[in-house]
Amino acid sequence: MTQEPISLASALASFAEQWSPRIVTAVNDYDVRVAKVEGEHVWHVHDHTDEFFLVLDGTLHIALREPAGERVVVLPKGSVFTVPRGTEHKPYAPVPTAILLFEPTGTLTVGDRHDEVPGHVDATSGHALTPGAF
Amino acid sequence: MTQEPISLASALASFAEQWSPRIVTAVNDYDVRVAKVEGEHVWHVHDHTDEFFLVLDGTLHIALREPAGERVVVLPKGSVFTVPRGTEHKPYAPVPTAILLFEPTGTLTVGDRHDEVPGHVDATSGHALTPGAF
Repeated sequence: MTQEPISLASALASFAEQWSPRIVTAVNDYDVRVAKVEGEHVWHVHDHTDEFFLVLDGTLHIALREPAGERVVVLPKGSVFTVPRGTEHKPYAPVPTAILLFEPTGTLTVGDRHDEVPGHVDATSGHALTPGAF
Repeated sequence: MTQEPISLASALASFAEQWSPRIVTAVNDYDVRVAKVEGEHVWHVHDHTDEFFLVLDGTLHIALREPAGERVVVLPKGSVFTVPRGTEHKPYAPVPTAILLFEPTGTLTVGDRHDEVPGHVDATSGHALTPGAF
């Protein structure tokens, strides 16, 4: 199979669902995903993996429960942040926002432990891009 | 240690060297690196790892030597591409270009096997960002 480059803008234009990542490519046993997000995700924790965020558009807030207490990091467009494994966190986007994530294949969006998952959050390890959609 | 988000623009503004990646964050045993590039890199191959490219600014060409023959993929700004392990490749940027890379910590910019490394190419597994520079 011959691989071609993927435009992130085209990939993002191929779906509308929020909090429902699409897998744009794989790197060894890791996936690169993009997601459209707005509003609140859910408090959750990945016990065995760090989670990388890059904000492609909009602004992402990530609330973190750390040993020293709770804090919120704010990621404007073009910023990156890694949530360390074992740190309970909750993403929140005040405006429509696009993000890129890097994490091991199979990592669930709601982690290994989480609060009750609201209906607008897709508990998934990521969906394939729709062929031919971009 | 408390981690803060990193602006990729500020990280890129903190150094001038080309073909000399800086490590902006780590994800488990992978590094996220940014690099400024222009002109030709060197033909090389990573025998044991895929290599992920995201073009942040400019345009990146990657020449690939595949079983079916040689081809060049073109990545405009906002595009991603993964070079599969074992595929000999040579990046080339016709204009000043900024890229983000994901690859296992310790991966050399010139791979496991390579042509003679020209003087303008830094054979490194990535440099730390200069503290306080951004």
